[in-house]
Amino acid sequence: MSDPLDIPIDASRLWTRHVVMAEIGATPNGGVTREALTPEDNRARAVLIGWARARGFGCAIDRIGNLFIRRPGRDPDAAPVVTGSHIDSQPRGGRFDGTYGVLAGLEALEAIDEAAVETRRPLEVAVWTNEEGTRFLHPVMGSEVFVHPERLDDMLALEDDRGVSVAAALAATRASLPALPERPFDRTAAAYVEAHIEQGPILEETGKTIGIVTGIQGGRRFRVDVRGEAGHAGTLPHKNRKDALLAAVAMIAELRELMRDPEDIVRFTVGRFSVSPNASAVVPDHASFTIDFRHPDEACLSRLGDQIEPVCRANAGPCDVAVAETGRKAPVQFDGIVPEAILAASEALQVPYMTIHSGAGHDAQNLCKICPAGMIFVPCEKGISHNEAESAKPEDLAAGAQVLARTLAALAER
Amino acid sequence: MSDPLDIPIDASRLWTRHVVMAEIGATPNGGVTREALTPEDNRARAVLIGWARARGFGCAIDRIGNLFIRRPGRDPDAAPVVTGSHIDSQPRGGRFDGTYGVLAGLEALEAIDEAAVETRRPLEVAVWTNEEGTRFLHPVMGSEVFVHPERLDDMLALEDDRGVSVAAALAATRASLPALPERPFDRTAAAYVEAHIEQGPILEETGKTIGIVTGIQGGRRFRVDVRGEAGHAGTLPHKNRKDALLAAVAMIAELRELMRDPEDIVRFTVGRFSVSPNASAVVPDHASFTIDFRHPDEACLSRLGDQIEPVCRANAGPCDVAVAETGRKAPVQFDGIVPEAILAASEALQVPYMTIHSGAGHDAQNLCKICPAGMIFVPCEKGISHNEAESAKPEDLAAGAQVLARTLAALAER
Repeated sequence: MSDPLDIPIDASRLWTRHVVMAEIGATPNGGVTREALTPEDNRARAVLIGWARARGFGCAIDRIGNLFIRRPGRDPDAAPVVTGSHIDSQPRGGRFDGTYGVLAGLEALEAIDEAAVETRRPLEVAVWTNEEGTRFLHPVMGSEVFVHPERLDDMLALEDDRGVSVAAALAATRASLPALPERPFDRTAAAYVEAHIEQGPILEETGKTIGIVTGIQGGRRFRVDVRGEAGHAGTLPHKNRKDALLAAVAMIAELRELMRDPEDIVRFTVGRFSVSPNASAVVPDHASFTIDFRHPDEACLSRLGDQIEPVCRANAGPCDVAVAETGRKAPVQFDGIVPEAILAASEALQVPYMTIHSGAGHDAQNLCKICPAGMIFVPCEKGISHNEAESAKPEDLAAGAQVLARTLAALAER
Repeated sequence: MSDPLDIPIDASRLWTRHVVMAEIGATPNGGVTREALTPEDNRARAVLIGWARARGFGCAIDRIGNLFIRRPGRDPDAAPVVTGSHIDSQPRGGRFDGTYGVLAGLEALEAIDEAAVETRRPLEVAVWTNEEGTRFLHPVMGSEVFVHPERLDDMLALEDDRGVSVAAALAATRASLPALPERPFDRTAAAYVEAHIEQGPILEETGKTIGIVTGIQGGRRFRVDVRGEAGHAGTLPHKNRKDALLAAVAMIAELRELMRDPEDIVRFTVGRFSVSPNASAVVPDHASFTIDFRHPDEACLSRLGDQIEPVCRANAGPCDVAVAETGRKAPVQFDGIVPEAILAASEALQVPYMTIHSGAGHDAQNLCKICPAGMIFVPCEKGISHNEAESAKPEDLAAGAQVLARTLAALAER
């Protein structure tokens, strides 16, 4: 008797689609800049819709711009098994971050379709809006609204650096796409499986192809605004200065000490920094920076994170400082049917695997609040990510998609 | 017998012209943004030309865009006595910095004209291009080329942040102005007198109206570029990071210590700072900042300034750093006939005066290389400058212009 879960994926088609997507927002050094709801994001969405419709899959969009590609199941009343990720990127980001999970999901659905497997549950590929949170400073936005529809209006009102709101950008995105039915926020999902490159070096270093993700570390984000007084660089005595840049530098130097960790588990990053008026002969009157702080342990997130504002205040010197917490994510655990199904698929396919913890945030951290969830990691070169040099091997991507297809088909029968 | 140097200036006209000029590039908080060779600078030049021509004064421009307003003298072969300053501003700068020296100069020439005083030498008001050096990062550019015409081509090739060259910006400036004869770089000036707000608190604190400037401190400017490697804020272990921002922060913190001066004579300013890719979840791969370092003593400029690059290297950690010196100005002394004439005028007019050293750079530091030079300072409120809040009293501005008119008339007879 043949294995009903023997569903060969097309590795060549999967790779070719990565090449096509990497062209959209391509940067000179081999990466992509495709921030959320930009013309590049919109073109990539249109390409995906084209592929899905060519296969006869349905497409729908919800009010935060999440895109859903659907293959029906036998049972019209059954909740779908959902896979997916995102296609927005960091500025000068990589070709695989997010995009892999979307293309592997589409490949899995196509392979299941080609194998003429009829699943009980529908299968869906979700393309979540603004996972990166760089243009609109709220990461995993689309999946958060999917899980918490009551936050929709707050998200729609967020603005980018130029004052364009999410609502306005979404209207432009909708106008640029073919007409799509609107999907309600019904929060229905029987299970969620997300494939992603690891974005770290562990799989590569240990020679494993599949990482069965056991959880995602938590994180807190802050924005610090330091206000001083502008003055002439040649005349103003230092005793009279309120130098916002020097105060910000003192804060960051001290925060670096606070966050120093011999075990190297704490993640502390100041990724954005700006000064004003930004003129070489003027003492800056304003400095602004972001803090991205992550840890797997909720108690540590509280203990260290709660010291950020006091440390900033203690180092403000003659300046004023405002510290705003712009986001907080608790650590999450993945257990139950999804990691079990990934494990079973990896064993059946005889792919080397290991369990692994995620340092990065992912849309799965939202989905796990409403349904069983889990993630499949595949290796990426030297663990490099959020970088134009991000790279992954076609055979690893194919192996991950193969495990995903088997996992989805199994979950869709439950 | 009447005093041939009794030349009453029109305080009301002088103030009104400051109000008019402050409208050009006005900012919401009462300052101006009128950077060199922008449409705002060009409009201000056109207004000046209009005032000069209404009085019958000649106007000419040279190949770096310095504008000259001229009242002829009796002796057609005599070199002119030159006054002036600049009308370009810092971004969100003040209404009086530079503009005062130009308007006081024009007022002096008008007053001399109205008094029907025939001077032996011609009198000229120079409007020097790009004194501030914020759009094109080379301060006192116009007066430097006037003194060193061999540097013209290098200056014309400088570009602003958007890639617009000085040459291209100058062409647009020329096109926006009425036709003007071109003045050669003949380096002829019998003497140079520049009026300026003090940009420091000393005159106000001591209750003096006139500062007879004895010299200008020297300065060195640097640009520091730190190169690291971009990475994911959630996944990249700190031991593997090449964080350009943290390296830059360590450098600035250490430079601050290097420059600490109990006597508060050292001036150390980091005015520009930027990071790339400037995304909150990405370890920055590039940080760039400027250093503005000034001191009245050449030996100190050498000793401390030469330690800047070693300090940056010692704090680069795993990153690469490049330190470029973008400018160096030696301290200058003003002595001889110009400060003597200012002193004589102040005494004759019975205006309270003192000698004073300049913390800020001025075009006079270039002109003093080719002719006797000096400066007249007037008080500004609380010493605030390079700031929208910069302010000065009409009566102080008038007193300075009155001293200037007498000084110019006296020098023009020598």
